[in-house]
Amino acid sequence: MKSSDPLLIVGSIAFDDLDMPTGEHRDVLGGAATYAALASSLVAGPGTRVVGVVGADFPEAHLASLRSRGVDTTGVERAQGQTFRWHGRYSSDLGSRTTLDTQLNVFADFSPKIPAAHKTSSLVLLGNIHPKLQVDVVEQVQRPKLVAADTMNFWISGEPAALAEVLRRIDLLIINDEEARELSGIHNLVRAAADIRKRGPKMLVIKRGEFGSLMFDDAGAFFVPAYPLEEVLDPTGAGDSFAGGLMGYLAARGEISPGIIRKAMFFAAALGSFCVEGIGPSRLLAVTRADLAVRIASFASLVEHGGDLTLPV
Amino acid sequence: MKSSDPLLIVGSIAFDDLDMPTGEHRDVLGGAATYAALASSLVAGPGTRVVGVVGADFPEAHLASLRSRGVDTTGVERAQGQTFRWHGRYSSDLGSRTTLDTQLNVFADFSPKIPAAHKTSSLVLLGNIHPKLQVDVVEQVQRPKLVAADTMNFWISGEPAALAEVLRRIDLLIINDEEARELSGIHNLVRAAADIRKRGPKMLVIKRGEFGSLMFDDAGAFFVPAYPLEEVLDPTGAGDSFAGGLMGYLAARGEISPGIIRKAMFFAAALGSFCVEGIGPSRLLAVTRADLAVRIASFASLVEHGGDLTLPV
Repeated sequence: MKSSDPLLIVGSIAFDDLDMPTGEHRDVLGGAATYAALASSLVAGPGTRVVGVVGADFPEAHLASLRSRGVDTTGVERAQGQTFRWHGRYSSDLGSRTTLDTQLNVFADFSPKIPAAHKTSSLVLLGNIHPKLQVDVVEQVQRPKLVAADTMNFWISGEPAALAEVLRRIDLLIINDEEARELSGIHNLVRAAADIRKRGPKMLVIKRGEFGSLMFDDAGAFFVPAYPLEEVLDPTGAGDSFAGGLMGYLAARGEISPGIIRKAMFFAAALGSFCVEGIGPSRLLAVTRADLAVRIASFASLVEHGGDLTLPV
Repeated sequence: MKSSDPLLIVGSIAFDDLDMPTGEHRDVLGGAATYAALASSLVAGPGTRVVGVVGADFPEAHLASLRSRGVDTTGVERAQGQTFRWHGRYSSDLGSRTTLDTQLNVFADFSPKIPAAHKTSSLVLLGNIHPKLQVDVVEQVQRPKLVAADTMNFWISGEPAALAEVLRRIDLLIINDEEARELSGIHNLVRAAADIRKRGPKMLVIKRGEFGSLMFDDAGAFFVPAYPLEEVLDPTGAGDSFAGGLMGYLAARGEISPGIIRKAMFFAAALGSFCVEGIGPSRLLAVTRADLAVRIASFASLVEHGGDLTLPV
């Protein structure tokens, strides 16, 4: 494997307590940066760097597990106190979830400090943190090829000015459909996308969970379905795995073009599909690049129409 | 345009009263057979035959409009009484609808009589009518290449034995996701599809409205997105237009294969996308084959990933 473009991921590292229809799971490794890094490293191999914070209670073995996949964890700060913890309950069809408890703990004071060796990362993925912190990261890195960011309704409604600054500073925004609607104030996603792209990001990905994802750029719109799975166990982290898979593909290719971003959408969707097949990151931790190649081939056949779509005459 | 395989469509012809967020519309031309025939004739040209029933109140001009597009309406019976009428109200986001009134009128006693000249139709599309009537049509036609059918929750729960017989007699079932779940008793669509296909139809299309459509056959699964539109006015008839577009493409090609059915899915989705752009069938009545070619090209670019999806090494 040739060496990939370095990818910097900044975001949460957490413990999740998951109440699933199939059972309860406690102290599950979680966080946006965790899922994204596991996904990107599967696609790109070594070259992913994580910046985040964990508490004194966070097992070194979890960081070692990331490192064993080629993820650089020197940017993971260990602070006094407890690790960020989220407790959620999913509906019986996994279509919705309720937050039962959020304990920010050490994440409350998280202020990303990018190690000197990471400041030249070619690619940057800003997880869903305070928009001011996202801007702060952008100011610490040096001329990346592409900066991508996630955000959420909490910042859209609560920090519109800071978020507007983020949008001006990034190349790619990766959000879900409800976030796109709230951010733009427009229900129709095509018009919402046009509105959001005018505010800064040239590229926009709108995730729709089991209904697939849309990407908008100067070349037009592109759609990738969610992979139709026989069993879905846990949607936690699927969006972050999607973002990590997408960025991992860009890292592996080492360049960015409309064609490459479209192919990256398949890798994004493939990593999202692996993620939901296990509780927490268990499936992501188990799959191999051979599994990924098989999943990508299945994806390709799912949309393979054979080429000639001219009107029959 | 070469002559297409003859396509027989059996189903409702109706007046719809539509309470849309954008206004109220009365006496709108409707019915599954109407939408399907308008869609198929746009793709295939002449060769679509409609069997249905209308009342004394049904304007001859509506039938003339179908005939002007090459649709054979000699199988449309004119009965004493009023035409089938449906009154529905859509939610503000068009995501759901409530039936305010249904007057079956002449449709209550509809018993399809296939004209002798139509019994050799190569392709048959059975609209959502009583499953016993669907079987009755299958018994009247002679060795068609493919029989497709729609159905609904009302028959799934109320006429399971008759519907089971339909499933044994058809090649392609075209239903929506909730119908697939109710019919199979399985929430997961991949497993629901496997269950339904075991009951008879080799091919199954599951429609998911704005979220696209899945097709399952012996060659695997195939997905086509819904076209991302800037404005949706009225979803009425979209599913029937989808089915008509699909069958129209098969008629135009004159053969059936996994590759052709996959291409047909794009024509199905394209006709569904035209349908929702106008109130009732207004947009379907206005679009040209040139418009269709443009829409199909846009669809192709929406899923065009450039071919090589092998893992970056």
